[in-house]
Amino acid sequence: MLTVGLLGAGRIGAVHAQAISDHPGSHLAAVSDMTADAAQALAATHGAVAKSSDEILADPAIDAVLIATSTDTHCDLIEAATSAGKAVLCEKPVDLDLARARRCAAHVEQTSQPVMVGFNRRFDPSFGALRDAARRGEIGKSELLSITSFDPAPPPVSYVKVSGGLFRDMMIHDFDMAHFLMGDLPETIMATGSAIIDPEIGAAGDVDTAIATLTYADGRLAVIKNARRAVYGYDQRVELLGSGGLLQAQNMLENTVVKSTADGVVGAKPTWFFLERYMPAYRAEWAAFAKAVTDGSPMPVTLADGVAALAMAEAAATSLSSGAPVRLSTLS
Amino acid sequence: MLTVGLLGAGRIGAVHAQAISDHPGSHLAAVSDMTADAAQALAATHGAVAKSSDEILADPAIDAVLIATSTDTHCDLIEAATSAGKAVLCEKPVDLDLARARRCAAHVEQTSQPVMVGFNRRFDPSFGALRDAARRGEIGKSELLSITSFDPAPPPVSYVKVSGGLFRDMMIHDFDMAHFLMGDLPETIMATGSAIIDPEIGAAGDVDTAIATLTYADGRLAVIKNARRAVYGYDQRVELLGSGGLLQAQNMLENTVVKSTADGVVGAKPTWFFLERYMPAYRAEWAAFAKAVTDGSPMPVTLADGVAALAMAEAAATSLSSGAPVRLSTLS
Amino acid sequence: MLTVGLLGAGRIGAVHAQAISDHPGSHLAAVSDMTADAAQALAATHGAVAKSSDEILADPAIDAVLIATSTDTHCDLIEAATSAGKAVLCEKPVDLDLARARRCAAHVEQTSQPVMVGFNRRFDPSFGALRDAARRGEIGKSELLSITSFDPAPPPVSYVKVSGGLFRDMMIHDFDMAHFLMGDLPETIMATGSAIIDPEIGAAGDVDTAIATLTYADGRLAVIKNARRAVYGYDQRVELLGSGGLLQAQNMLENTVVKSTADGVVGAKPTWFFLERYMPAYRAEWAAFAKAVTDGSPMPVTLADGVAALAMAEAAATSLSSGAPVRLSTLS
Amino acid sequence: MLTVGLLGAGRIGAVHAQAISDHPGSHLAAVSDMTADAAQALAATHGAVAKSSDEILADPAIDAVLIATSTDTHCDLIEAATSAGKAVLCEKPVDLDLARARRCAAHVEQTSQPVMVGFNRRFDPSFGALRDAARRGEIGKSELLSITSFDPAPPPVSYVKVSGGLFRDMMIHDFDMAHFLMGDLPETIMATGSAIIDPEIGAAGDVDTAIATLTYADGRLAVIKNARRAVYGYDQRVELLGSGGLLQAQNMLENTVVKSTADGVVGAKPTWFFLERYMPAYRAEWAAFAKAVTDGSPMPVTLADGVAALAMAEAAATSLSSGAPVRLSTLS
Repeated sequence: MLTVGLLGAGRIGAVHAQAISDHPGSHLAAVSDMTADAAQALAATHGAVAKSSDEILADPAIDAVLIATSTDTHCDLIEAATSAGKAVLCEKPVDLDLARARRCAAHVEQTSQPVMVGFNRRFDPSFGALRDAARRGEIGKSELLSITSFDPAPPPVSYVKVSGGLFRDMMIHDFDMAHFLMGDLPETIMATGSAIIDPEIGAAGDVDTAIATLTYADGRLAVIKNARRAVYGYDQRVELLGSGGLLQAQNMLENTVVKSTADGVVGAKPTWFFLERYMPAYRAEWAAFAKAVTDGSPMPVTLADGVAALAMAEAAATSLSSGAPVRLSTLS
Repeated sequence: MLTVGLLGAGRIGAVHAQAISDHPGSHLAAVSDMTADAAQALAATHGAVAKSSDEILADPAIDAVLIATSTDTHCDLIEAATSAGKAVLCEKPVDLDLARARRCAAHVEQTSQPVMVGFNRRFDPSFGALRDAARRGEIGKSELLSITSFDPAPPPVSYVKVSGGLFRDMMIHDFDMAHFLMGDLPETIMATGSAIIDPEIGAAGDVDTAIATLTYADGRLAVIKNARRAVYGYDQRVELLGSGGLLQAQNMLENTVVKSTADGVVGAKPTWFFLERYMPAYRAEWAAFAKAVTDGSPMPVTLADGVAALAMAEAAATSLSSGAPVRLSTLS
Repeated sequence: MLTVGLLGAGRIGAVHAQAISDHPGSHLAAVSDMTADAAQALAATHGAVAKSSDEILADPAIDAVLIATSTDTHCDLIEAATSAGKAVLCEKPVDLDLARARRCAAHVEQTSQPVMVGFNRRFDPSFGALRDAARRGEIGKSELLSITSFDPAPPPVSYVKVSGGLFRDMMIHDFDMAHFLMGDLPETIMATGSAIIDPEIGAAGDVDTAIATLTYADGRLAVIKNARRAVYGYDQRVELLGSGGLLQAQNMLENTVVKSTADGVVGAKPTWFFLERYMPAYRAEWAAFAKAVTDGSPMPVTLADGVAALAMAEAAATSLSSGAPVRLSTLS
Repeated sequence: MLTVGLLGAGRIGAVHAQAISDHPGSHLAAVSDMTADAAQALAATHGAVAKSSDEILADPAIDAVLIATSTDTHCDLIEAATSAGKAVLCEKPVDLDLARARRCAAHVEQTSQPVMVGFNRRFDPSFGALRDAARRGEIGKSELLSITSFDPAPPPVSYVKVSGGLFRDMMIHDFDMAHFLMGDLPETIMATGSAIIDPEIGAAGDVDTAIATLTYADGRLAVIKNARRAVYGYDQRVELLGSGGLLQAQNMLENTVVKSTADGVVGAKPTWFFLERYMPAYRAEWAAFAKAVTDGSPMPVTLADGVAALAMAEAAATSLSSGAPVRLSTLS
């Protein structure tokens, strides 16, 4: 039984609390949050106790912590937790600053503690099935990857301002997905974007719609499309063209009902947002982490993977500013 | 070059005139109709001349006639045309009366002239592909056939009154499709129906919605559903379950556009009616007839097939009246 | 908190144990089974204790029992449990004998205890959405219902022999679905069937493939197709044609991946069997039962519904034997 | 009746000959080709006569010419034909050299003869329906366009060498589609590509897989993906995200048959190549041209549109070489 402390009782913290509780081999023992009431409420729901994060890290009974606090605290907490001998599952992104994330990775390496970064989409059954089919060679050699990733509705501008920008906050998932599916990092990234959905997002210095093009050393190409608004729901699709065919992972739908009338043939919309779409993936993510901690086997998503995705996001942000492609190797 | 006379210049006659004109090896030479103006107009469209049906049958230059007149004239014209040495493609049904159709078949047998019955759906590419797949054993041994066949809108009650009823007028296509796909005739037919769409159809002694269940000597089963109204368009689907899987022929759609909005995901409707859906099948039907006439090879759909479909329709009509299954072999 | 005793620790008992454990307002306290080891094992998995069914029914701390024992014990246990003041959720069918089921219902009426019959498919989100759309009039007036219900693989013949036959064991789900979707019982049922999948099933006096046709007093029609084998998975589809359109509930798929190669375009298969397809429905079923017990509100599926489905199954079995339609009202 | 001369009797010339012949208001009178036999053969098929292109242009009975010769002759023939008073429908691209195409356009302007460029995809019913829906505001304001355009198999390298490169030869269709759907030209184009399918194509100085990103002055974005090989068939899809939803035009399939077996659920592949997919579009293209010539109404696709598409292709080719985005306005 893995005894777990949860740091952060916000929206995503609640998602993880549920996933931990549902896991037969894990026990959610303690929850912390900057807001004591939030920690108290979430802890009560799952039969845990509210504590401070310091108390959790100091508690020798806690085997692992899940970090779901605000991004600016991630590296400090990863370092503190690994120093305290805990296994860590940390939400993405590792940090908004690539250099800080790299220092954190260096620290962790010294502790030899297992750290996993929470790229939940790697645990989506359809994306996983697509990757498995590609690895088995079912479409020959991979050549061109396309990722469509649209949120149903834009976040408040107040959030956008502290988010690190679309590339570090939203597209970072897709950069990791490209890494996951292509099995390698790109050589160059070229990004373009626009604040066409909400001019306030533009006034805040960010974009809400963006395209990134990735080139790989072996000639493969990838393109990622992001939009902060797709009024029909969470649009999360992947296509991979290879020498022997095409693999597509399509959206999950709310139900399977189709209505044909004089107005047309209407089917259900995609599931609304990440909770509806990815709750099974969050459960599978936790199970994979718990298994790796228990087995002592390698983490399925490493801190290095988290740093790599952040580097890709930084390259894209730089490209958006400069209007030119950025070589990933040039990022200091 | 096959020189062709068309008997009947109504709606379905016009369809066939187009198919004949589009065929590189056929020449539409003459058109007849009870209404001289109709014959004249259709003939003009295709560079043919308007004549009487007697003139067409007497013309030694005419190799083949297509009979698209009213049902009550089919047998007389088939007999006259074959006696005159013409090859014949006759619209369905052969007749509304099984005994009359059988006498016609006996007559034709003496003339040894080639006669084909116009079951156009046998020439639909998707139904053809389904049958081919079944014949190749792709789903193992066939076990259970389902045919869905809904018209977009009911015909006028005046038409219903002379149509011979839903089974002889509409479901006869599906009886033939069952024959085509199962490669055999059923042992028994049980039918039920209702005038739920239009009570006037019920007052005219007919049904507008019906289900027929067919049993085969080897244990196979089939079910046919008909409705005179499907407001979303012409619904023409087939499913065949076998020991190794399921084959489905789905509807053709007006286009491939899909719209996702807050209201749902909307695709195009099925093609509206038989012209939109089956024009390629009418062309293929004529080409198959012309080829068989030219080659002297067997007709792809025989007059016996037409009589068989009529027998199935009569069995269904009898079953509807009696409330009991009817053995096909008992029809005198 | 609802304290629950589970009677029966077989395959379906284990499904219910999971659904009860997952429900926040329910506590699985005790499990019984003819085989003590089975009760012990299932109880241990869910932190319950193994007891005899008599002990469970005698325990005043138990609020509700779930009956998942063999069919021949259902009525006795329903009667004993309601007499003991328990709320009851009983698996289908109520019994194989209609008269016995009716006596059971009469008994229950005297106890005034809440009893629900476990027609899990009523709680499937897609079937529910279809019914809601029909009730809202989205396709006008309902006219023609079609239910396709194929199992992935036939059960052992030993099971078939004690199952009560396809209509009471398998199609009973679809009879209840027709009841659920049409909101009424049919006037007549006509059934046909065949042992085409496995002759041993025929030798055991049963069929493995069947079609039932239902007529309603207001002219509506329904057709149900059952097959004991669909090698591609659990095929569970519903179509409802109305004056204003068509509603279809399609299969759920294993994932959303589509592969296009030179061999064709391949998508995932339907979910394999009832556990994969209906686990969410089992959870929703239990939640609905627990809510009704707690609220004192009417049961969402009543014992009368269970008796009605059994009557329909009996009518179908009688029709299969006699070859004639059976009026539901004639069943004594 | 429009009397037509066809210049060029190759593969695409044959397609147009068929479309002209199928048009009730047009008469294909003459066909020319560098290879006299080819002209003779195609002319014979359609009841036309073989002539030289000079003879055709000099023939006062010829109202319109269709130019389907090799690209390097397009501008000379457009100029000669318009000087000779003919209406012209010219295959894409206008030329491989932007300056030459612009001089041609200037020439044509002086003659005031109607000239249309053959961007057949504008006449595809699904792309047309998508554009109409967008124009009607069905998805609000357009924001992000995606075009997927893959050929089934790469052309011979000998063809690639004279093709002008992927952007001028293949993606030019998609540049025009972007123009058609967005109703405007982009401000900048950034392209990347790779010869990952066939190194010989790379050795010939071209790419076989490419992505172009387009930015518009109003903040809209577009992305075009091209690949010279998709072994499953001609993959031609469009997606347009707007403030109110998403429009997708999906592939047409060879038929509607779906097979479900233990190996998966297999549907038909997309239609194989441009002939199978776009024959109806070629017919509609000719009909639109013929109508505009007859009416004296504006050409549905102008020579300016052809020049614009070529400019976009040149921008993309320049961007591929330089690795930087190219502003369309800087092309001299």
